[in-house]
Amino acid sequence: MKVSELGEFGLIARLAEAFARGGQPSCLVIGIGDDAAAWRASGVQLVTTDTLIEGTHFSLPYVPWRDLGWNALTVNVSDIAAMGGIPEQALLTLALPPETEVADVDELLAGMLEASSEYGAAIVGGDIVGCDKTMVTITLIGRALVDDRGEPLLMTRGGAQVSDAIAVTGHLGDSAGGLRTLLGASTGSAEAADHLKRAHLHHRPPLAAGQMAAREGVRAAIDVSDGLLQDLGHVCQASGLGAIVHAQQIPISPALRQAFPQDALALACGGGEDYQLLLAAPTEVIERVRDRAEVPIAVIGEMVADGQHRVRLLGEDGCELAPPEPGWDHLRGAAWRR
Amino acid sequence: MKVSELGEFGLIARLAEAFARGGQPSCLVIGIGDDAAAWRASGVQLVTTDTLIEGTHFSLPYVPWRDLGWNALTVNVSDIAAMGGIPEQALLTLALPPETEVADVDELLAGMLEASSEYGAAIVGGDIVGCDKTMVTITLIGRALVDDRGEPLLMTRGGAQVSDAIAVTGHLGDSAGGLRTLLGASTGSAEAADHLKRAHLHHRPPLAAGQMAAREGVRAAIDVSDGLLQDLGHVCQASGLGAIVHAQQIPISPALRQAFPQDALALACGGGEDYQLLLAAPTEVIERVRDRAEVPIAVIGEMVADGQHRVRLLGEDGCELAPPEPGWDHLRGAAWRR
Repeated sequence: MKVSELGEFGLIARLAEAFARGGQPSCLVIGIGDDAAAWRASGVQLVTTDTLIEGTHFSLPYVPWRDLGWNALTVNVSDIAAMGGIPEQALLTLALPPETEVADVDELLAGMLEASSEYGAAIVGGDIVGCDKTMVTITLIGRALVDDRGEPLLMTRGGAQVSDAIAVTGHLGDSAGGLRTLLGASTGSAEAADHLKRAHLHHRPPLAAGQMAAREGVRAAIDVSDGLLQDLGHVCQASGLGAIVHAQQIPISPALRQAFPQDALALACGGGEDYQLLLAAPTEVIERVRDRAEVPIAVIGEMVADGQHRVRLLGEDGCELAPPEPGWDHLRGAAWRR
Repeated sequence: MKVSELGEFGLIARLAEAFARGGQPSCLVIGIGDDAAAWRASGVQLVTTDTLIEGTHFSLPYVPWRDLGWNALTVNVSDIAAMGGIPEQALLTLALPPETEVADVDELLAGMLEASSEYGAAIVGGDIVGCDKTMVTITLIGRALVDDRGEPLLMTRGGAQVSDAIAVTGHLGDSAGGLRTLLGASTGSAEAADHLKRAHLHHRPPLAAGQMAAREGVRAAIDVSDGLLQDLGHVCQASGLGAIVHAQQIPISPALRQAFPQDALALACGGGEDYQLLLAAPTEVIERVRDRAEVPIAVIGEMVADGQHRVRLLGEDGCELAPPEPGWDHLRGAAWRR
């Protein structure tokens, strides 16, 4: 059956039923099906939104609908994780061509519900529109952790200090390597290819690590979504500082090194869509976080005074390396995704 | 200059500057430029989202960018008005073709800022994406009015009772008549054409009337966005009732009658994009609202017991009229907008 046969209101009813099965938060007053959703709130609320557009962010021939649903939510969870927050309510805007199969939409919803269950966000409303391409927008609302006195524990791009250690979670570049692999460019083993493709199709933002970092006193963070060096550049700009990154300390997976031996560093520096966290804090704070986190955390450099807010990449000999490919700019495009 | 020359981050900086000039609410903790926006909240929060897509919701040859910016925000204000709430924070997702002129985006921002100033919503974040068509999504967060005991005063689709009077604000059908006029179909005077086009290009949801209705005790409302009879049908479904509408009581403007004498009633019943409010409440409550509102409010019918949740349209002689064209279904399309 096509969604045009089900109709907009049939599809909304189907969504409402699916999301109700996913459970609703106790603070919810009004969910899907009214002019607005409503919930009881207190403290500091957070909100972020990210859109995935067919042809720009994904291509249906190689991105399964289920992964699309998962990723649409998790790219937003990544932003809440970078603030150290707790995801709560999500709105889904779904633009669909009328000839879309209802079975495909069901797969998308299943993936979204898996992510919703994994990360604790409930879908409470949204909008359905007809369009000639598929587009999935999630707006995710959350709340900040608070300290003993009820003050919010937020990590921001502008919270870094001179000589803070810079650390990242997980491995970088796997997602960009996975996209290349999906496009047929891999030279590595089947196992490496599977690992990289999974990193691209199924983002797993380290939400618990973000919350723990905020509790442990980290005050500066960003999610690595447009490429490590570019995103670190945003932290430098917002904090009025520069950064030094030691190339050999950047966490690169064995799979990426094997599949793309020449480009692994460039992919890790500028590939984008990693959905890992970059943290900046005094060394002892980062060490506490590293000791307690359930994900690998690697120190890759330090914040420095620099009026030009540069991010400099140093090689093993301490010499500055030429900047690899830039990260992603949605209006200009960038090499890795073209 | 094209937006591709300015780049994503140049455009975000331009937006942030424009929106900062528009003022920020005192509850705002973090605005544009971080991974998420943050604000202090208490009570019941509301959230809604609506997307306008080129080719589906508007066509740039006849919708000025300034009006597009205004409408992108006001269609969401309409949803918050239908809950009786107060708009506060908005997120903007802007999908743009790289060849879009920066001057056009500036116009869009100007229109959005006018609406933001008029209705008291501040744009605090969003997302910029490249796309082959223009798309504007606003997510609007607000809060519910509360009574003396701090309990929320919400109007919902499911709040109607048997024998409630049904009332609507303003005139219906003008926006659909305006679209027809823009497409060249008008037979009326230049003055009527201007009135109708304005209704289509520059929605003015009656926010203050919605808040006043909630304070006066109205517990059921919906915004009329997909066509009167269809939207009233949603109230019937959610309230488990039926509705009677008296055709001659539907408020139709002199301009619409003059420009489309044959179709005025059908346009008022199913034209869509009116962004007026439909209220259901005991007659004495509706009369209080009507006496105090700054916009015209017309009683058009009453809620009745009906297990089939029908909306029945009666002529002057009390006989049931055949249902006019259905309202808008985004996945099936509808006559008035094809």
